Amino acid sequence: MVYSAELIRRKRDGERLDPDELGELVLAYARGEVPDYQMAAFCMAVYFRGLDGAETFALMDATIRSGETIELGRALGRKVVDKHSTGGVGDKTSLAVGPIVAACGVPFGKMSGRGLGHTGGTLDKLESIPGFRVELTTEEFVEQVREVGLAIIGQTADLVPADKLLYGLRDVTATVDNVSLIAASIMSKKIAAGADAIVLDVKVGDGAFMKTIEAARELAEMMLELGRHAGRELVCVLTDMDQPLGQAVGNALEIRETIATLRGAGPQDFTELVLSATAHLLALSDLDIDERTGRERAVAAIEGGSALDMYERWIAAQGGDPAEESLPVAPVVRDVLADRAGYVRSIGAVDVGMAALRLGAGRQTKEQSIDHAVGVRCLKKRGDAVAEGDVLAEVHAGTDESATQACAEVLAAYKLGEDAPPERPIVLETIA
Amino acid sequence: MVYSAELIRRKRDGERLDPDELGELVLAYARGEVPDYQMAAFCMAVYFRGLDGAETFALMDATIRSGETIELGRALGRKVVDKHSTGGVGDKTSLAVGPIVAACGVPFGKMSGRGLGHTGGTLDKLESIPGFRVELTTEEFVEQVREVGLAIIGQTADLVPADKLLYGLRDVTATVDNVSLIAASIMSKKIAAGADAIVLDVKVGDGAFMKTIEAARELAEMMLELGRHAGRELVCVLTDMDQPLGQAVGNALEIRETIATLRGAGPQDFTELVLSATAHLLALSDLDIDERTGRERAVAAIEGGSALDMYERWIAAQGGDPAEESLPVAPVVRDVLADRAGYVRSIGAVDVGMAALRLGAGRQTKEQSIDHAVGVRCLKKRGDAVAEGDVLAEVHAGTDESATQACAEVLAAYKLGEDAPPERPIVLETIA
Repeated sequence: MVYSAELIRRKRDGERLDPDELGELVLAYARGEVPDYQMAAFCMAVYFRGLDGAETFALMDATIRSGETIELGRALGRKVVDKHSTGGVGDKTSLAVGPIVAACGVPFGKMSGRGLGHTGGTLDKLESIPGFRVELTTEEFVEQVREVGLAIIGQTADLVPADKLLYGLRDVTATVDNVSLIAASIMSKKIAAGADAIVLDVKVGDGAFMKTIEAARELAEMMLELGRHAGRELVCVLTDMDQPLGQAVGNALEIRETIATLRGAGPQDFTELVLSATAHLLALSDLDIDERTGRERAVAAIEGGSALDMYERWIAAQGGDPAEESLPVAPVVRDVLADRAGYVRSIGAVDVGMAALRLGAGRQTKEQSIDHAVGVRCLKKRGDAVAEGDVLAEVHAGTDESATQACAEVLAAYKLGEDAPPERPIVLETIA
Repeated sequence: MVYSAELIRRKRDGERLDPDELGELVLAYARGEVPDYQMAAFCMAVYFRGLDGAETFALMDATIRSGETIELGRALGRKVVDKHSTGGVGDKTSLAVGPIVAACGVPFGKMSGRGLGHTGGTLDKLESIPGFRVELTTEEFVEQVREVGLAIIGQTADLVPADKLLYGLRDVTATVDNVSLIAASIMSKKIAAGADAIVLDVKVGDGAFMKTIEAARELAEMMLELGRHAGRELVCVLTDMDQPLGQAVGNALEIRETIATLRGAGPQDFTELVLSATAHLLALSDLDIDERTGRERAVAAIEGGSALDMYERWIAAQGGDPAEESLPVAPVVRDVLADRAGYVRSIGAVDVGMAALRLGAGRQTKEQSIDHAVGVRCLKKRGDAVAEGDVLAEVHAGTDESATQACAEVLAAYKLGEDAPPERPIVLETIA
């Protein structure tokens, strides 16, 4: 029996909880023995008092034990790699990284989530491909990774049930923003899904959950500690999210940009992030190569066409039509023109994300449906010189009315200035 | 519609909430439209961030508006007085104050609660009287105050339903200890029950909820502010709870002590508190007398026997047998003997309260039943000189076994020393 009110009080008073007690609280919650209202009070106490490393590990570990775990590596007889991003505007990285890694001979099986708010979800993006199935059984998932080398699916219902309950609760009780709760949630999913080695992409900036490099570093270090304590190999990259990643923001538009990138014709910042993440993943894999060789192989897979081939095999394996022409197209496409000359100083990532959301690219509540065709393409990026009248961005909309609104919002998101801003690389820091 | 998650977040971040918004949150909670888990997270955020005076008033006001209110004064055509104590060990003050005030011609109608933990509840004490009914309808209550001049009953179901929900929730989510939540809870009940003038008795010390005079003062000032803002007249006394109040701790034992006090033969500290509270109540009443005259009338009501007469009429009106002989008697009475000579330096009020609780005088969970006969009588009090072998206290128990345990606990609660401790009055401070 868990004395849950007593545990809440002790955490409220700043005491460190015994890891076994904390784990039992989480498991009892998952079994329905601890009510939501006690867990909500507990999460708020954690928000104010924090959890130390051992407590956070206990939270993660109990979350994993609350459900089934997938032994992907054992099933394949291979070391399995995975990547995770904390989410940003225009973040389609896994969609390009997966095919390249698989094309280089390393199996890549990933469970992803849906978007909520101004950041899109990988599953929503994949569902813009006609016929694509995100819901495979665990057996189909393992089998596809074995046969094709690549699968990206929705998280199965039996994986980390405690996290699903906790996440839903935190979302409506203002208890999302805590580094331990975030780190334990992310790492429980990665570890339960069976990854041996993990590349973590922590986004930093206006469009990210972590607004400052210090906050991002704190989250990164907590995740590294949790993963290593669980016997996993990890690398963490802190990457820029002060402007949208790449050009495309919106589901089908991001699939198109993924295909272009796999052809070697993607935006510079996005291509760089994809190559960097892929190089880390290959270096962590059982190929026994270093990061530099990993990067060379990634470039070769793009240039030689094997990455795009893998993309097409993967999409087809999950029932989708890999042809770019099959993707939905928005009926209204409108240019956003520069109202002055200058350099792009910044592009508000949240503003662009919210403009795409209001166009219908995302959900404002869990029940809303998505228009996969709509979104924004930011053709000019930070540091670009523009003349008055130049096309800054394209708005892809369902109606003239929504296009007009989005154009105004996107124009307002662009800040132009006299001078070019200082250069800011896409990968800000690597913590290994 | 209340954006409850947003209100939680804003309170979590230390923002001041608009009183209307906060009131609507409470009312929506009482209507079942805001779930317990959001209210629990909100209360924990309030625990850390506090509420200012306007927010606390909004909380109290909405709590009152969540149910019915009783217009006792209007029904009687009189100014109605009430008293409230924050609860302590051996606190039977209302049981003696009520008959004296009523004997002096001022109607006294009070709604009380049950005990939980180491402090007993007024209703539990009254129920040790055979036949006594604590559950009257509002109509019966008003009628009895009109006819007899005195009624003490359990809070009706329709009064402050938001407080009942909130109190139950706070009890199991470690969110009881907040001055605003406590003050709003107490004052909502007093005001909804119709009092025009209120004497508040805030207990201070080891056996009380408020451990320090500073904490007690803070609560007192918040309650005074709330009551005055609601147009009530108030006096607050801060009183000592470092040792049990009077001698008796336990339901029937406290009724006996009440009767003794109404006969003028009560313990000195308890008698002093009763006279002090009564004097304040009479001074606040429509008798148009000052506190000093109030005290003289109270003394006269005791000496002349009208207070005891009123007690008997009141108990009989609620179906009880007022004869002291009808009260239950414990089968085992054991003396606690001093194991050395010296002065009583202190008597741990919580220790004595817990000993009585374990004897069966109180509830450890809401479902437990009570043994009305059992308890402790602390014959020696702080400052008394004792010789080795003197009787310090009596334990009234249901079994030899429980008596043995309680004797050891009560002996341990007595701290003896070489010198007499400094005198400490029962009324520490009066805030008017």
